[in-house]
Amino acid sequence: MVQAKTWILTKHFEGFPKDSNFELKVEELPEPKDGEVLLEAVFLSVDPYMRPFSRARMQEGDVMIGTQVAKVIQSKNPAFPVGSHVVSRSGWRTHTVSDVKELIPIMSDWPQDVSLSLALGTIGMPGLTALLGIEEVLGLQKGETLLVNAAAGAVGSVVGQIAKIKGCKVVGSAGSDAKVAFLKELGFDEAFNYKTVGSLEEALKKASPEGYDCFFENVGGPFSSVAIPQMKNLGRIAVCGAISTYNDTTPQTGPYPHLTMIFKQIKMEGFMVGRWADKHPESSKRLLGWLKEGKLKVREHFTKGFEKMPAAFMGMLQGENIGKATVVV
Amino acid sequence: MVQAKTWILTKHFEGFPKDSNFELKVEELPEPKDGEVLLEAVFLSVDPYMRPFSRARMQEGDVMIGTQVAKVIQSKNPAFPVGSHVVSRSGWRTHTVSDVKELIPIMSDWPQDVSLSLALGTIGMPGLTALLGIEEVLGLQKGETLLVNAAAGAVGSVVGQIAKIKGCKVVGSAGSDAKVAFLKELGFDEAFNYKTVGSLEEALKKASPEGYDCFFENVGGPFSSVAIPQMKNLGRIAVCGAISTYNDTTPQTGPYPHLTMIFKQIKMEGFMVGRWADKHPESSKRLLGWLKEGKLKVREHFTKGFEKMPAAFMGMLQGENIGKATVVV
Repeated sequence: MVQAKTWILTKHFEGFPKDSNFELKVEELPEPKDGEVLLEAVFLSVDPYMRPFSRARMQEGDVMIGTQVAKVIQSKNPAFPVGSHVVSRSGWRTHTVSDVKELIPIMSDWPQDVSLSLALGTIGMPGLTALLGIEEVLGLQKGETLLVNAAAGAVGSVVGQIAKIKGCKVVGSAGSDAKVAFLKELGFDEAFNYKTVGSLEEALKKASPEGYDCFFENVGGPFSSVAIPQMKNLGRIAVCGAISTYNDTTPQTGPYPHLTMIFKQIKMEGFMVGRWADKHPESSKRLLGWLKEGKLKVREHFTKGFEKMPAAFMGMLQGENIGKATVVV
Repeated sequence: MVQAKTWILTKHFEGFPKDSNFELKVEELPEPKDGEVLLEAVFLSVDPYMRPFSRARMQEGDVMIGTQVAKVIQSKNPAFPVGSHVVSRSGWRTHTVSDVKELIPIMSDWPQDVSLSLALGTIGMPGLTALLGIEEVLGLQKGETLLVNAAAGAVGSVVGQIAKIKGCKVVGSAGSDAKVAFLKELGFDEAFNYKTVGSLEEALKKASPEGYDCFFENVGGPFSSVAIPQMKNLGRIAVCGAISTYNDTTPQTGPYPHLTMIFKQIKMEGFMVGRWADKHPESSKRLLGWLKEGKLKVREHFTKGFEKMPAAFMGMLQGENIGKATVVV
């Protein structure tokens, strides 16, 4: 009999998450039946989306949602042999009995020298979000100028690098000098610390006096109110996240963007990466290719210990991480 | 020597326009030179866009911007014979000497029994805005549900009718019971007076419990904050106008729409009809065709006298008109 540790959402978040929103519970797992496998978590992802999704998709008492890289440790399904690895939407749990329906095997050509943790980052959901946001939502073209905020995060850091691969000028905003230094290492043309620039408007104008063709939006809130008027005519905005608003107890308000959107004919589109599930396999291969060629650099922010999941999650929401925030069991 | 009466913007608008923002001036016109024509205004358009454009595109002391249907009364250009009619962006003036570059001749197959005033309305800029907003921005498909506000106005009333032609369910919001009755005459499936419904949210839910695929936005401001959450997944919003905010002295604010746009993957796009100038001739022909077939009904709100232009403009901004607001010289 295997015991799974799980993290429960005991109470819906009000404002910024607190330790008391979470509870560690131990669960006895049944034996896998025919066709099923028993998984053991190796890496667990903490991502910004979990904050708003908790309210939209979870009940109090549910295991926290989330994705993990797991190892098959017992198998009654020949397609998933013992010792193989998968990406699983198991939530925050150390062990899972799975009917394999939602499992994604790690790509067969995954290189030995590439950490499997990247299946939760640059070669996983965040990387796909960056790539498909750029290609399917923004339609970014060579020679254009792209703005990305939360640029040192799991998605933002990939966005900027892909835009460089595509021959664009890239401007990144991040929340610490260390993050700005990281963005420069990644090849961003311009990067600034939005917390210390004084005027965000001036920083945006200075970084690209001619404005922005594309804006990959991860932050929302007041940043968006300043950034939208800096778009060029026919500018496109991919709305991927709004982390600055996720912990609001009363919604923040800002000026209506309509008139600016009309005069500049701006398009703004919200998206989630699952929309293009059919494109994920080919897109993952391209991401892995760029990684192997050295065109995509990676940084990960590891927290050791399943017990630390809430701390890792809250730290990520506070911007502690540079690159992808991941928990190592 | 011909004298032109003109309406000057003496001082930029602050808040709602006042009589003191305008001044009637008389101007001596030179003789037309070779290639030029002398125009006499017959119908002049007053449109919502003039309010925000005044700040963006005009200096104090300029003649108010605007389009008119004019008659050629003197010609030194064989392509524009005396007695022919044109659409001209002359601004608010009774007479104009034009080098013909920006003139659009009235379509050669314009029917005798159709008022030339419609070249400023259903068969002109507002009609093209409706048609191209629906086709190029919304990509409205048969069977979908469309919401339009300011629905009894020059653009909105055409939007709803085209959506019906395309086999859609149409919901319209307007600001008086007479306007709502007009929308029902036009064949709108649902129409309500937003000033008397009590809860706009409930009115929108009642009119289409399953939500909205497309939203043709003419109003902006708080209406948009209520309407955006009523969109279906993958909903599209064409941002054509924001009349509820044009007279703000300090910008109105509302909740940031980002999270709703992400969860529902909503697209919102500002546009101006000039973007598809290449499509105007063919699109105008289609509008005229629908008019002749009786599929597009028309109502115009005429004000008599060039002297009344400011009053007609201010009345239109207050929603006095049902259908297109036009001044007859």
